Amino acid sequence: MSTALDSWRPGAARSAIESFVAAVTTGPNAVPVAERVAVFDNDGTLWTEKPMPTQLHFIVEQWARMARDDASLAGQQPYKAALTGDLSWLGHAVEKHYAGDDSDLHLMIGAIVASTANESVEDYQEAVERFYAEAHHPTLGRPYSEAVYRPMVELLRYLEEHGFSCYIVSGGDRDFMRPMTVGNYGIPSERVIGSALGLAYDADTNEIRYGTSFDFMDDGPIKPVRIWSRIGRRPLLAVGNSNGDLPMLAYVKKHPVSLSLLVHHDDDSGRGDAPYDSGAETALAEADERGLVVVSVKHDWANVFPEGAGLNQ
Amino acid sequence: MSTALDSWRPGAARSAIESFVAAVTTGPNAVPVAERVAVFDNDGTLWTEKPMPTQLHFIVEQWARMARDDASLAGQQPYKAALTGDLSWLGHAVEKHYAGDDSDLHLMIGAIVASTANESVEDYQEAVERFYAEAHHPTLGRPYSEAVYRPMVELLRYLEEHGFSCYIVSGGDRDFMRPMTVGNYGIPSERVIGSALGLAYDADTNEIRYGTSFDFMDDGPIKPVRIWSRIGRRPLLAVGNSNGDLPMLAYVKKHPVSLSLLVHHDDDSGRGDAPYDSGAETALAEADERGLVVVSVKHDWANVFPEGAGLNQ
Repeated sequence: MSTALDSWRPGAARSAIESFVAAVTTGPNAVPVAERVAVFDNDGTLWTEKPMPTQLHFIVEQWARMARDDASLAGQQPYKAALTGDLSWLGHAVEKHYAGDDSDLHLMIGAIVASTANESVEDYQEAVERFYAEAHHPTLGRPYSEAVYRPMVELLRYLEEHGFSCYIVSGGDRDFMRPMTVGNYGIPSERVIGSALGLAYDADTNEIRYGTSFDFMDDGPIKPVRIWSRIGRRPLLAVGNSNGDLPMLAYVKKHPVSLSLLVHHDDDSGRGDAPYDSGAETALAEADERGLVVVSVKHDWANVFPEGAGLNQ
Repeated sequence: MSTALDSWRPGAARSAIESFVAAVTTGPNAVPVAERVAVFDNDGTLWTEKPMPTQLHFIVEQWARMARDDASLAGQQPYKAALTGDLSWLGHAVEKHYAGDDSDLHLMIGAIVASTANESVEDYQEAVERFYAEAHHPTLGRPYSEAVYRPMVELLRYLEEHGFSCYIVSGGDRDFMRPMTVGNYGIPSERVIGSALGLAYDADTNEIRYGTSFDFMDDGPIKPVRIWSRIGRRPLLAVGNSNGDLPMLAYVKKHPVSLSLLVHHDDDSGRGDAPYDSGAETALAEADERGLVVVSVKHDWANVFPEGAGLNQ
């Protein structure tokens, strides 16, 4: 793996990154290595989140399996949607949530919690590892490990080469990410921050097991809180792509020497990353006033995915 | 700082450590570096917790300050105890807790939460740094940085030299420990796991502030849960000294290659570390059946505190 930013085209975004890294690593104002912390959102920032987040792919498979094992579930949502493959109910549940009706969302969360209730964290880890080993991205038609954004992996290595510690800070489930973050991004499990289900220690077996509660959703204003809880310092650099990343980007931007990047999914050039602004409208609208540097997938990235090397250079 | 175990006398405890480290770092069964994780309790394990935990010293000073600023508090507990210096009320509150009456304990927790309500985490960090810079241990009569256990600091360095990542896992407040862990132990803030007050993101100032709730107490069965949450793997080595460390010691001991150490405060030789079994009775009684290696402060440690170098060798 090269530590150069080969997949970044020359331009404002790449220059902002290179200037920032030079400023914090050289000269009399260099920041001590211990303080060089960078935080990255995952879905839509480090890898594609379209047509659906990877975790939804996994949980739908789990729900379908549960419904096949227990016929009483087959007629209930969200199991019915999973079993039939008609996922429109899930989309409607989210739409109802935004319209102020959380009834279907509660059914979904209940079914998420039920899918791991009483399972040990290590057994869940193995189930997730099997998923990543076998699953293919529904539109790219290849393993999810090849749905990562190559320019972002280059940025992770570039920052590490300059003394940064890089963390993932995602709304996705922490324990669903951990089995893939070393292989996909080179980020170890202790640097993966995400949403969490409630856990309890089982003294009879000396295992840690999921309970029947949701602990917290690591999104929006919770992201800065979780960053402090886990790391204990304000990072210098943050990268996100959605409205839910705005508090994290603003929190980091308040550091006197900082860089906050907002990935804009504007690529209509057919390289496999469909363009969309949905879920990022506020972030894009406020980018200038908040001092965010917008990264254009279309213009700033010479490649998007690993196998695309050289195609657009 | 030497990375040898110079303050450990030859004997069963030191041999157990050296044999274990050799077993996991050499030969065909060596454990990959990424999996070499060690966890240490803090109070009573890495530094002295007698005559009272350092955090109690700090919070009593805070309560006294609050009562001087607000006369209406002066007649109320625990402020009254703090203001008069008669701390027996605090001891009674804990005794009542063990007798099933939490009324006074709730007053204490309420006053702990009130002492930081709405304060930013960074302001609190500065206040704690000032405390550590100025406070003296009440019986040793020197800064708390010189109340650390020298053999334990040697063990941290010895483990790190053999590829281990060392974490603190304490019932103490995470954010109260962080300002001293690099200086005292060489452990950075992201490897400090402890109890936590509730936090919230203040979008107006881009600061993280303490709220008015207690989040969780990192003791007993919560310690393994927090280890998983923060690190995402089962450690190989654990060190504790009290009943509250038993679940952590047992959780680690279940790893197929593991070592769990229990520090026994049995030193009556006048080296400044008063002997006590209180709070460790169950741990000591169950040490054998649980496969814990007991570390005798009296017999296994040639020195206890930093300035004691050479005195007892």
